[in-house]
Amino acid sequence: MRSFIETDSLSHFPIQNLPYGVFKPSDGEPRIGVAIGEYVLDLSVIEQEGFFKRAGLNEESIFNQFSLNAFMKLGKSTWKLVREEVQRLLDENEPELRDNAALREKALVPIKEVRLLLPAQIGDYTDFYASKEHATNVGTMFRGKENALMPNWTHLPVGYHGRASSVVVSGTDVRRPNGQMKKPDQEFPVYGPSQQLDIELEMGWFIGPGNEQGKPVAMADAEDQIFGLVLVNDWSARDIQAWEYQPLGPFLAKSFATSVSPWVIPLEALEPFRVSGPEQDPEPLDYLKQSGAGSFDIHLEVYLKGSKMEQPQRIISTNFRHLYWSMAQQISHHTVSGCNLRPGDLLASGTISGPEREQRGSFLELTWRGTDPIRLANGEERIWVEDEDEITITGWCQGAGYRIGFGEVTGRILPALVAADTMK
Amino acid sequence: MRSFIETDSLSHFPIQNLPYGVFKPSDGEPRIGVAIGEYVLDLSVIEQEGFFKRAGLNEESIFNQFSLNAFMKLGKSTWKLVREEVQRLLDENEPELRDNAALREKALVPIKEVRLLLPAQIGDYTDFYASKEHATNVGTMFRGKENALMPNWTHLPVGYHGRASSVVVSGTDVRRPNGQMKKPDQEFPVYGPSQQLDIELEMGWFIGPGNEQGKPVAMADAEDQIFGLVLVNDWSARDIQAWEYQPLGPFLAKSFATSVSPWVIPLEALEPFRVSGPEQDPEPLDYLKQSGAGSFDIHLEVYLKGSKMEQPQRIISTNFRHLYWSMAQQISHHTVSGCNLRPGDLLASGTISGPEREQRGSFLELTWRGTDPIRLANGEERIWVEDEDEITITGWCQGAGYRIGFGEVTGRILPALVAADTMK
Repeated sequence: MRSFIETDSLSHFPIQNLPYGVFKPSDGEPRIGVAIGEYVLDLSVIEQEGFFKRAGLNEESIFNQFSLNAFMKLGKSTWKLVREEVQRLLDENEPELRDNAALREKALVPIKEVRLLLPAQIGDYTDFYASKEHATNVGTMFRGKENALMPNWTHLPVGYHGRASSVVVSGTDVRRPNGQMKKPDQEFPVYGPSQQLDIELEMGWFIGPGNEQGKPVAMADAEDQIFGLVLVNDWSARDIQAWEYQPLGPFLAKSFATSVSPWVIPLEALEPFRVSGPEQDPEPLDYLKQSGAGSFDIHLEVYLKGSKMEQPQRIISTNFRHLYWSMAQQISHHTVSGCNLRPGDLLASGTISGPEREQRGSFLELTWRGTDPIRLANGEERIWVEDEDEITITGWCQGAGYRIGFGEVTGRILPALVAADTMK
Repeated sequence: MRSFIETDSLSHFPIQNLPYGVFKPSDGEPRIGVAIGEYVLDLSVIEQEGFFKRAGLNEESIFNQFSLNAFMKLGKSTWKLVREEVQRLLDENEPELRDNAALREKALVPIKEVRLLLPAQIGDYTDFYASKEHATNVGTMFRGKENALMPNWTHLPVGYHGRASSVVVSGTDVRRPNGQMKKPDQEFPVYGPSQQLDIELEMGWFIGPGNEQGKPVAMADAEDQIFGLVLVNDWSARDIQAWEYQPLGPFLAKSFATSVSPWVIPLEALEPFRVSGPEQDPEPLDYLKQSGAGSFDIHLEVYLKGSKMEQPQRIISTNFRHLYWSMAQQISHHTVSGCNLRPGDLLASGTISGPEREQRGSFLELTWRGTDPIRLANGEERIWVEDEDEITITGWCQGAGYRIGFGEVTGRILPALVAADTMK
């Protein structure tokens, strides 16, 4: 399949992908679009022209909206219908849009000319801890090799509630947080800027229709809840975390900012890249039993660009398929108690690490808590993220001659606010 | 001060209170009202009649809304203006509403004839752990007397992100959750209904204007963020919690339901009952320093009514003033990292316990983990909450001849869903 909008083999957004996003054109209100090559197809225009109605969509004004929530709510059959119509309109053999210069002019906008916004109004954000390598690395550093994994870890996807208000779209600068921390050798805690600022390479997925409170989502239905996937950088302040997290878990260490990529890749676009996740031993309880392949082969990379660097340098290279717990298992577990998910809720995987050093998804693991610095090509070293560092996560599925890309999520660190009068 | 709508000395809603809520009349859409005695004053009518505009409110249509969020956002000076105008209209010496039968007919609805809804659209819900007695009791049971309080507890208000989607209004039935748990003497975890269902007596407060991401709220400004207070029952499944909570904190054990009372008591109504909280030792860091009295004398009670009981029986009697960390300290700490609060966000105190047995705010503490059952007047005992039990929390400030009441938050437990095919 090819589009009349040309894309080369490295493009993230060929006609096989068609991710959804919310964009603000230079001269109008935010609305919903689909990325195709270097362009955004404005779905509010396609909707207004009646294409979706003719294709069988009964709803009005789904795409002339500030967020994808209303579309997410409609569920899989509607997503399929819209995707097929968009794919048809962009096909190189379909003249309807290709040969209509006036419509092309109205509906296709260069991505460079728009501002990309947060794709959904996120009601709740949940962060899991689904990578066995990550949990083992962190556990080994904090509790030693013998007690690395907590006894519950291999029986359920451990997760916690994150902060929805501070989820920001790629490109938003991130202010280094101030907070309270106490080093092991200090008698009293101190207030000040975090000295151990870290990243977490994650992927997230937005919930579609959701479930009623009290009614769990069974494994067989769990993937129908996945509207699509994004890249996530779950910024973390390790020194704040170490002091605050017992016994109720991470709080301020992770709620100052979480960055997500703007384009939501439909689950359907990932189907050709479906693979089995790692073997699960012990076998999960019935309500978590995965039948069939539940993971995806998504290559993931992280780049760092410091203020003294000419070029970003790759520091991490890993794969989504390393995750021990599948997205379906995370969804089923999340709802087994009757907890309700709502359209636009964001679930994220937790840090995705693999078995090799370059596959570790956080500075904490890469530098083994500071003992083995990251060496940069210009001679600098990094133990933690420094002010002005720009961190970019990117990822894609590699097809035969094309890529299903996730674009990128990027964020630059601003120095902490100086609040001398509240220092102690 | 008295209203022409008569209230006796035990009424929760005299003219000194004037709490806000969202109600649905039998013949109309949800809108905002104020409770006065046995009536709701429909603020959408008062607004439409131009009273607020004459009093100086510039905004239109703040009260013809499904939630209080827009009003919460406007901040303290607007809250004051509206409160003064409502208090004036309800005063026994003011004829404008008192003597206008047509307006009274339109604007005053018996509470019994309306349905009370969730007062706000809650973006994020944060739950603290601010009672020293509660943290000490729980810590003693789980880790022994010597290590009861974690080292961080006296230095910062420990808190965690809760689940916003499952917050429900008083009167909503609560389904006993299924989940995964493992008793200490079991080799493997099992799936099934929680056998250790508990309550947590808490109070919550809704955030007003909120703060920009990256800009903390200083202690001096923190109370300006408090729109008003409600009663909270943070239902908890202790067996699910014990198995899941390490290392990221409580997740499914508390996200199946959290019940709140429908009437939001303005902070201003509580001013006559302001008191100092417990002395804080060690002295908090500067960014958490409380100047002046930061607590309130609010009497709190919990009642249980089992299916075989004629009358509800009081099982807990305690006071908000026992809380170690003030609301202002919780807000300042929450934002010190730059985490943004938004209008309608809910912060809750965590379980409020006092030094005496009857002052313990959860079954876990009351029964000392099941070793000392609650004895009911009809001869029954309780270790945990049972199916069909109805739990009601109520509370008030006692003035001279009047009460500032919080109404109540009530919830009844429905039996767990039977899902035999997913049992193991």
